[in-house]
Amino acid sequence: MFEAAEVGASLSKEEYKKLEPKLREALLKAQGKLSEGGFAAMILVGGVEGAGRTDFANTLLEWMDPRHVQVHALGAPTDEERERPRFWRFWRLLPPKGRLSVHIGNWYTQPIVGRVFKDLDRDAFAVQMDHIVEFESMLARENVRLIKLWFHVSKKAQKKRFERLEADKDTSWRVTKQDWEFHEKYDRFRKISEEALLKTSTADAPWEVIESSDRHWRDVTAAQKIVQTLEAAADAAAKRTPPAKPALPKPKAGSVIKKLDLSRSLSAKKYEHALEKGQARLARLARKLRAKGRSMILAFEGSDAAGKGGSIRRLTQAIDARNYRVIAVAAPTEEERKHPYLWRFWRDLPRLGQTTIYDRSWYGRVLVERLEGFCAPEDWKRAFAEINAFEEQLASFGTVIVKFWLSISPEEQLRRFKERERIAYKQFKIGEEDWRNREKAPAYEAAAVEMIERTSTPHAPWVLVEAEDKRFARIKVLETVCDALERAL
Amino acid sequence: MFEAAEVGASLSKEEYKKLEPKLREALLKAQGKLSEGGFAAMILVGGVEGAGRTDFANTLLEWMDPRHVQVHALGAPTDEERERPRFWRFWRLLPPKGRLSVHIGNWYTQPIVGRVFKDLDRDAFAVQMDHIVEFESMLARENVRLIKLWFHVSKKAQKKRFERLEADKDTSWRVTKQDWEFHEKYDRFRKISEEALLKTSTADAPWEVIESSDRHWRDVTAAQKIVQTLEAAADAAAKRTPPAKPALPKPKAGSVIKKLDLSRSLSAKKYEHALEKGQARLARLARKLRAKGRSMILAFEGSDAAGKGGSIRRLTQAIDARNYRVIAVAAPTEEERKHPYLWRFWRDLPRLGQTTIYDRSWYGRVLVERLEGFCAPEDWKRAFAEINAFEEQLASFGTVIVKFWLSISPEEQLRRFKERERIAYKQFKIGEEDWRNREKAPAYEAAAVEMIERTSTPHAPWVLVEAEDKRFARIKVLETVCDALERAL
Repeated sequence: MFEAAEVGASLSKEEYKKLEPKLREALLKAQGKLSEGGFAAMILVGGVEGAGRTDFANTLLEWMDPRHVQVHALGAPTDEERERPRFWRFWRLLPPKGRLSVHIGNWYTQPIVGRVFKDLDRDAFAVQMDHIVEFESMLARENVRLIKLWFHVSKKAQKKRFERLEADKDTSWRVTKQDWEFHEKYDRFRKISEEALLKTSTADAPWEVIESSDRHWRDVTAAQKIVQTLEAAADAAAKRTPPAKPALPKPKAGSVIKKLDLSRSLSAKKYEHALEKGQARLARLARKLRAKGRSMILAFEGSDAAGKGGSIRRLTQAIDARNYRVIAVAAPTEEERKHPYLWRFWRDLPRLGQTTIYDRSWYGRVLVERLEGFCAPEDWKRAFAEINAFEEQLASFGTVIVKFWLSISPEEQLRRFKERERIAYKQFKIGEEDWRNREKAPAYEAAAVEMIERTSTPHAPWVLVEAEDKRFARIKVLETVCDALERAL
Repeated sequence: MFEAAEVGASLSKEEYKKLEPKLREALLKAQGKLSEGGFAAMILVGGVEGAGRTDFANTLLEWMDPRHVQVHALGAPTDEERERPRFWRFWRLLPPKGRLSVHIGNWYTQPIVGRVFKDLDRDAFAVQMDHIVEFESMLARENVRLIKLWFHVSKKAQKKRFERLEADKDTSWRVTKQDWEFHEKYDRFRKISEEALLKTSTADAPWEVIESSDRHWRDVTAAQKIVQTLEAAADAAAKRTPPAKPALPKPKAGSVIKKLDLSRSLSAKKYEHALEKGQARLARLARKLRAKGRSMILAFEGSDAAGKGGSIRRLTQAIDARNYRVIAVAAPTEEERKHPYLWRFWRDLPRLGQTTIYDRSWYGRVLVERLEGFCAPEDWKRAFAEINAFEEQLASFGTVIVKFWLSISPEEQLRRFKERERIAYKQFKIGEEDWRNREKAPAYEAAAVEMIERTSTPHAPWVLVEAEDKRFARIKVLETVCDALERAL
């Protein structure tokens, strides 16, 4: 695919001078539309060394309003980054809606360089390309528009450029030893890059290969592509309609939730004994988790008043406060709404040795957001696959994941609601919304059943908890966490 | 001051049981007032090892609504933290308005431990205490309420607690070798802590010493203090009135700005030559900055259309795009408004080897915020000292700082505004606000003069730039940056 970018495309200085003002105007107009906030945009600038990626970024910053553009170059990962899955550092950099970022060095860099130098075998490389396609497809659907530019120069042109830069004492520093090492591997780079580009040129996020031996041609062609993409994205954003009121799903008979035996219970005495034993066991395992440099994620879902908070506290009592964090997930903030829905969960991922407990989680996408119509049907439908991909990344990084669904009967819920209204210090736990949600309980249950069926995986299983009796539920949660840690460590 | 906390204060189980429900209710009510968003609160939990700081945090999380509380323990600084001034890690953790955070280990930890083990001498310790007082006083005025609790137990009680924990196989892990090392130094810890507490018990943020050998007494007393402080803060927030329309300052004759010789200019030929030479020099120095692991901060202020963007671009053209970042400062976002005004600037501080260029800066506090009445007079008046303290921290960390004020005549500004309206791709640079600001130009100039006089320091000097002629201004900026780097490296 690179042959088409070795035909000697160029622009004379006069042509360039004629095009530039119009192009700048078009860029600024497109940026204006972007800033209306319907979408975000990321420009990935890839290509061989010496193709002028940094030069282009500089030019682009001159042409556009720098107040809304952020250029990122990829340095070595920091320790905070190394302690999370590979994509964490990119999630950190996602621009919010209304903003544009330019990435010199990005999620393609490490796989391509790794494959060129054979740190990655063919299969591992292919898997990484699949992850990239998944990631980019999610971004596109979450209104982060990707503009993927690949700057190509021939091996000869690369050599010429390095030599020209080296000849001038003011630019010779720009050519490094690594550049020449990469030059020697040019043919392999070309082959691997071609593979990467072919595998990741999707309808949502196609690559644009740009011949780059002439900088005028390169800059103008790249800028035109940016204008086109931003304009198309703005048109698409303008046409978007708010999701219609959703049809509520009906519960199936004999579902996994219906089948739970809610009569299971524990006596106070048995509970006290099991609690003490379980917490001592968890304390030991949590210390082992830390010693081994692994991390853990627990997610709690369930109907209102099912006892999530109480179960969580029986866990945290056994863990050193320095080693866990409870994130209670409420409606997203303005900043969170400007990012893909998984962004805020990525943000809070635990460091090695740490545990993050989510009181409600990313599954809100297929529960409350689905049922209240906060997202469109196509959004929650794709979420199952996106969530599985997210959890798979966590698991393959070594994170222990357990997800709990706490179940109570409608009668028990009513009793707890009334208790909450009665006891002063529990009043904060109960509001109008809870009563409203209660009316939709059958739909919530149906959505939960679908969620459990579609996202229970070996590496991130759902554990259904009979929570009618609080004591039984707390012990089941506690022992399940211990078992999961024991298996993993 | 610790004698009063060794009198054997305690609560019987019955008294505790009676107090607990009321206390929980009061805590939740206070938290409700907090969540209305008028202020943020930070609970610092200090004290000797074995006083139960973590236990208290666990209890507090049980009593309050965990959705709005975040517990932070102080680990070793990460590399991202080590590459910024010491307080950066604490700025990262500041809770937004409406939220509460609990800090086990905080900005007192390192100075006290350092002084106990004599890594810090008496003077260095005193300086750190002064910095803490400055920092906390700023927080208080920015509506971050500090609740500083010091948990005290006597040496004997500490020993008893360690021994009791060690005797039980389920809790023995909680006592570390370090605990016993610290126990041996108990008397010195006590002395140094007393010094620290005396020096930092201010009207804004007093310490509350709590006898902690009895956990019921400790938890109840601490929680009561939290309730009182939150209630007082809520009352104060409710009484706050929006700032009145400010009186505009009048320009003084013969000010530093008036005295500038705006006729200074450069011919195109001289400019081209100086630009090429200057950029080559800057390129070399920027590489040296990186090689030496230092960082640089440049701040640009000046009247609208004074040419800040153009001057900045002449700098960035000479610096590798991977090593700098331009932050264009606009109106704060919702998230930024929930934090102290310096928060967003701390957030973007460069890592070692990097440069951050602020196109407008924290000086907005004493310019636009002062003149438009976005903050009260007492707010911008204290900002001079706060800003000097901020820049001093940067400088003592080794950051090179230069601040530029670009000056043009009203006539030249008018000419540039009209040009911007005429040239399509410059239109984004001009809006109604610019025309409105122009009417207030004399007041802006007077405020700028006061700012320059009060914040020009040896480590962070203001450089006034005659910007009537763009060429002259760009070269002066470029050469000034080079000179500053040369002196520093």
